[in-house]
Amino acid sequence: MEITRIERIRKKLHEIIYEADTPFGKLFDVILLLLIIVSIISVMLESVASIRFLYGTELAIIEWIITGFFTLEYIGRIIAVKRPLKYIFSFYGIIDLLATLPAYIDLLFPGWHFLVSLRAVRLLRVFRILKLAHFVGASNQLVVALKKSRLKIAVFLFSVIVLCIILGTIMYMIEGPEHGFTSIPMSIYWTIVTLTTVGFGDITPATPFGQFVSMIIMILGYGIIAVPTGLVTAEFMSKDRKVHENTQVCPNCSADHHRDDAKFCYHCGHTL
Amino acid sequence: MEITRIERIRKKLHEIIYEADTPFGKLFDVILLLLIIVSIISVMLESVASIRFLYGTELAIIEWIITGFFTLEYIGRIIAVKRPLKYIFSFYGIIDLLATLPAYIDLLFPGWHFLVSLRAVRLLRVFRILKLAHFVGASNQLVVALKKSRLKIAVFLFSVIVLCIILGTIMYMIEGPEHGFTSIPMSIYWTIVTLTTVGFGDITPATPFGQFVSMIIMILGYGIIAVPTGLVTAEFMSKDRKVHENTQVCPNCSADHHRDDAKFCYHCGHTL
Amino acid sequence: MEITRIERIRKKLHEIIYEADTPFGKLFDVILLLLIIVSIISVMLESVASIRFLYGTELAIIEWIITGFFTLEYIGRIIAVKRPLKYIFSFYGIIDLLATLPAYIDLLFPGWHFLVSLRAVRLLRVFRILKLAHFVGASNQLVVALKKSRLKIAVFLFSVIVLCIILGTIMYMIEGPEHGFTSIPMSIYWTIVTLTTVGFGDITPATPFGQFVSMIIMILGYGIIAVPTGLVTAEFMSKDRKVHENTQVCPNCSADHHRDDAKFCYHCGHTL
Amino acid sequence: MEITRIERIRKKLHEIIYEADTPFGKLFDVILLLLIIVSIISVMLESVASIRFLYGTELAIIEWIITGFFTLEYIGRIIAVKRPLKYIFSFYGIIDLLATLPAYIDLLFPGWHFLVSLRAVRLLRVFRILKLAHFVGASNQLVVALKKSRLKIAVFLFSVIVLCIILGTIMYMIEGPEHGFTSIPMSIYWTIVTLTTVGFGDITPATPFGQFVSMIIMILGYGIIAVPTGLVTAEFMSKDRKVHENTQVCPNCSADHHRDDAKFCYHCGHTL
Repeated sequence: MEITRIERIRKKLHEIIYEADTPFGKLFDVILLLLIIVSIISVMLESVASIRFLYGTELAIIEWIITGFFTLEYIGRIIAVKRPLKYIFSFYGIIDLLATLPAYIDLLFPGWHFLVSLRAVRLLRVFRILKLAHFVGASNQLVVALKKSRLKIAVFLFSVIVLCIILGTIMYMIEGPEHGFTSIPMSIYWTIVTLTTVGFGDITPATPFGQFVSMIIMILGYGIIAVPTGLVTAEFMSKDRKVHENTQVCPNCSADHHRDDAKFCYHCGHTL
Repeated sequence: MEITRIERIRKKLHEIIYEADTPFGKLFDVILLLLIIVSIISVMLESVASIRFLYGTELAIIEWIITGFFTLEYIGRIIAVKRPLKYIFSFYGIIDLLATLPAYIDLLFPGWHFLVSLRAVRLLRVFRILKLAHFVGASNQLVVALKKSRLKIAVFLFSVIVLCIILGTIMYMIEGPEHGFTSIPMSIYWTIVTLTTVGFGDITPATPFGQFVSMIIMILGYGIIAVPTGLVTAEFMSKDRKVHENTQVCPNCSADHHRDDAKFCYHCGHTL
Repeated sequence: MEITRIERIRKKLHEIIYEADTPFGKLFDVILLLLIIVSIISVMLESVASIRFLYGTELAIIEWIITGFFTLEYIGRIIAVKRPLKYIFSFYGIIDLLATLPAYIDLLFPGWHFLVSLRAVRLLRVFRILKLAHFVGASNQLVVALKKSRLKIAVFLFSVIVLCIILGTIMYMIEGPEHGFTSIPMSIYWTIVTLTTVGFGDITPATPFGQFVSMIIMILGYGIIAVPTGLVTAEFMSKDRKVHENTQVCPNCSADHHRDDAKFCYHCGHTL
Repeated sequence: MEITRIERIRKKLHEIIYEADTPFGKLFDVILLLLIIVSIISVMLESVASIRFLYGTELAIIEWIITGFFTLEYIGRIIAVKRPLKYIFSFYGIIDLLATLPAYIDLLFPGWHFLVSLRAVRLLRVFRILKLAHFVGASNQLVVALKKSRLKIAVFLFSVIVLCIILGTIMYMIEGPEHGFTSIPMSIYWTIVTLTTVGFGDITPATPFGQFVSMIIMILGYGIIAVPTGLVTAEFMSKDRKVHENTQVCPNCSADHHRDDAKFCYHCGHTL
C-alpha cells in the first residue's frame, strides 16, 4: 500500500518535472524558465562592479532563493526518475548539480572569484529553454537543414582553417614581430579576424607588401562567405521543394511529382 | 444648411489630408514629405556645433515655419476625421503632436538640451513616407517575404542571443576585467560585436586562450550568417515558384494549388 | 578626289579607334588599355611621397609620353566622328579631354596639388576597359540580374537609410557629444558603420544603454544583409530557370514547359 | 633476378607512398598527415618567444625527427617513381625538398631568422591533406560549383577592384595625407578594408565629406556582397535542379537532358 502511494507521487513528480503535457508540467517549465532567466540576469548584474557595490545584499538574497529552488528541483529530479544514477551522471544531471553547488561551496570556503566562475555554469541550463524551443516546428526545420549540409560545412571550415594557417604564416614572415605580428599563432588570429571581415584593428599591417596581401585576404573573405550561404540556402530550398511533392508514380499513366496530399493523378484522374 | 457646408469642408479636408487619389491629396502628401525631409535635415544641421553657431537664426526660422505647418496640419487632421479622439490617441496622432510641441515648450520653458531630444521624435514621422513607399509593389513583396519567415528568424535570433550570453560569460571568465572585459554584460556586448563581424576593436582579447576562443566565435559568426540569408532567399524563391502552380479551383471539391499542367483534380479526380 | 581620300582616312580612323572587329581596332584597344593601366599605376606611385622623391623624373617622362598619346587619340577621335561637337560634349568626350589637360596646365600654371586632383580624373577612363568586359557574356548576365531587382534594391536601401537616420538620432540622444557622437550626422555615420558590420572603432558607445542599443543595431545589420542577398539570388535563379524552358504549349496534348530547343512534344511526340 | 626484386620493391614503395588503396598506403598517409600537423604546430609554437625560450630543445628534437622522416620520405619518393626528374621538378617535389632542407642548412650555416622563413614553406605540404579531403564527395561538389561560376566571379572581382581604385582616389583627394590617407595605394587599401566590411579602424575619415563618401562605400559594400552569394547559390541549386532531368539519351538522335516525365524525344519525336 505504502509503496504504491510512493510510486504514485513519483509518477506525479515525473509528470510535473519531465513532461510538459499537463497544466502543472507546463507551469513548472515556465517557472523554471523564469528562474533561469532571473538567475542569468542576477549573475550578469553581479559581475558589474558598481551594481555589486550597491545591491550586493539584494542579489545575494535572490541568489539564495534560486539556489534553494534549484536544490529542491535537483532532489525532485533524482526521486522522479527510475534510474537516478543515470540522471546524475548525464550531461544535464551534472549541469543541474553545478547550478546549485557554488552557493554552498561559498558558505564553506569563502572566496569571491572562484565562486563567480562556477556560478556561470548555470548559464548552460539555458539549453533547457532551447528544448522548449524544439517544440516550435521552425527550429526543427533549421536544425534539419543544417544537419544535412553538415559534411559540406565541415569541408568548407577545414579549407578556411588551412587557408588561414598558410596566410597567417605568410603575414608573419612579411610583417614580423615589430608590427604586432609577434608569433605565427598571433598572425593566424589576425588572419581569421581579417578573413571573417571582423577587423578589430588591434593589429594592422604596416608594410606596403603586408597591406597588399591584406587586400587579397579581405577580398577572399568577402567572396568566400558566399560558400556557406549558398550551401545552406540550397539545403533550405531542396527541403522546401520536397515537402510539397512525393515520389509516387501514377499506376495508370506514370506521371510523377504528385502533391503530398494528392488522391488522384493530376494527369489522368486515376486513383493513386 | 450650415451643417452640410461644414460637412462638405470636412469631407474635402479628409480627401486632401488622408487620401492620395485627388491632385490636391497628392500635392499635400508631396509637400508633407518635403517638409519632413527639410525638418530632418534642419534637426541634423542644428546638432552640428559649428553650423548652429553660424546659422542658428536661419535654422530657428525654418523650425518655426515647419512647426506652424505641422500645427495647422495637426488641427486639420483632428477636424477631418469623424472620431477625433481615436486619432489623437493613435500611434501617428501622438507622433504628430510630439512633432509640434517642442517649439512651443521651448517658448514657455527655455532650455536647450531638453528640446533637442524631443524634436528628434519628429523623425518618426518619416514612417509616413514609408507609407507612400507601400504603394510601390516591390516594398510589399519584401514585407510579405520577411513576414513569412518571421517565426524562423525569431528562432534564429533567440539561438544567437543564447549563444552570445554563453560565449560572453566564457570570455569574461577567460579574459577578466584587466583586459577590458569589465563585466558579463560588457563581455556579451563584445561577443555580439565579434559574432556579427562588426569588430569595433574597443575591446580585444589579450590572452592566447581568449584569442583562441575569439577565433572560434569569429568563424561561427562567419558561418551563422548563412542561416538568415538562406531563410529569406528560400522565402523569396518559394513565392517565385508558386508561379508554377495555377489559380484554378476544382469545380467539384474546391481544392486549389493545382499544377499548371493538371487536367484532373488531385483531390477528387474531377476534370478541371 | 581629295575629299574621298580624306573621307577614306576618316573611315579608317573610325574603324581603328571606335570599332574592335578589325585587327588594328583590337590592337588599338589593347594599347589603350595598357596605357590607361600604366597611367593609373604611375598616378598611384607618384602619390607615394618616397617614390615621388626617388623616381620623380622617370614618372614625369612616362606621364608626358602617355599625355602625348592621349592627346593624339583625342584629336583622332574628333576627326573620326561625323559630329565632333556631340563627341566633345559627351561623357567620354569630357573625360578624354580631362585626361590630357592636367599636364599642359601644369606647364602654364605650375602648382603641384591642384594638378594631382585633376590627373586622377584619368582613372575614370577605366570604364572603357569595362566596355571591353561587356563583351564577356558573364558580365551581361550580372548586369541584367541587378537591373531586374533594381526597384526592390532601391526600396531596401531607402528603408536602411531611414532606419539609420532614426537609430543615429537615438544614439546621439543616448551617448551625446562627450562620447564622440558630436552631432546627428556623425551619429548616423556611426550607425551606418555599425549596421553594415564595418565597425571602424573610431567612435564606440561608452554608456551601458548605448551599448545595449548598439547590440540591437548590430544584430539588425547581421540579419538585414539577408535581404539584398535573397533578392539577387532569387533574380539569378529565376533568370536561369527561364532560359531553359519556353512558353510553348503542345497543340496536340497541351503539355507545356518545353525546352527552348524542343521540336517535338516530350509528352505525345507531336511536332511543336 | 636482382632487377625484378628491385622492381618489386619499387612497386611496393609506390603502392605505399603514392596510393591509398592498400592498408599500408592508408597508414602511410595517416602518419604523414599527423607528422605534417605536428610539424605545423611545432613551427607555430617555436615562433612564440616565451615557448621558444622554455622548450627550445624539445622543439628542436621534434624538428629533427620530423626532418628525418621527411628526408627518408623524399628519397623514397624519388626511388618509387619511374621518372624521378619529373617528380623532383614538379610543384610537390620542390615543396618536399624545401620541407627537409632548412634543418640541414641551419647545421651548416647557423642563423635563426633565415631558417624560420624557410621552414614555414613546410606548411604548403598541408595541400596533401586537402588531396585526402578530395575523396570526400562533398568537397568535389563545392569545387565543381565554384569552377562553374568562375567566370562570373572573375568579372565581379574585376569590377570590385576598379570600383576600389576609383573610390580610393576620390577618398585620397578628399581626405589627403593629413588624415592618414598618405597615398593613393594606401587610400585603396582603406577602400578595400571598408568595402569588404572589415573596418580595421587604423585609418578613418575625418572630414564631413569624407565621412559622407564612406557611408556610400559602406552601403555599397553591404549590398555588393549579395552578388557572389547569389552566383554561388544559383550554381549550387542549378546542379540540384538537374535532378529533375534524367540521363536518358534518345536512341534515334542521341539528344540528352530529357525531362524526367518525357515519353518522346524533344528533338526528333522518337519514343524514348
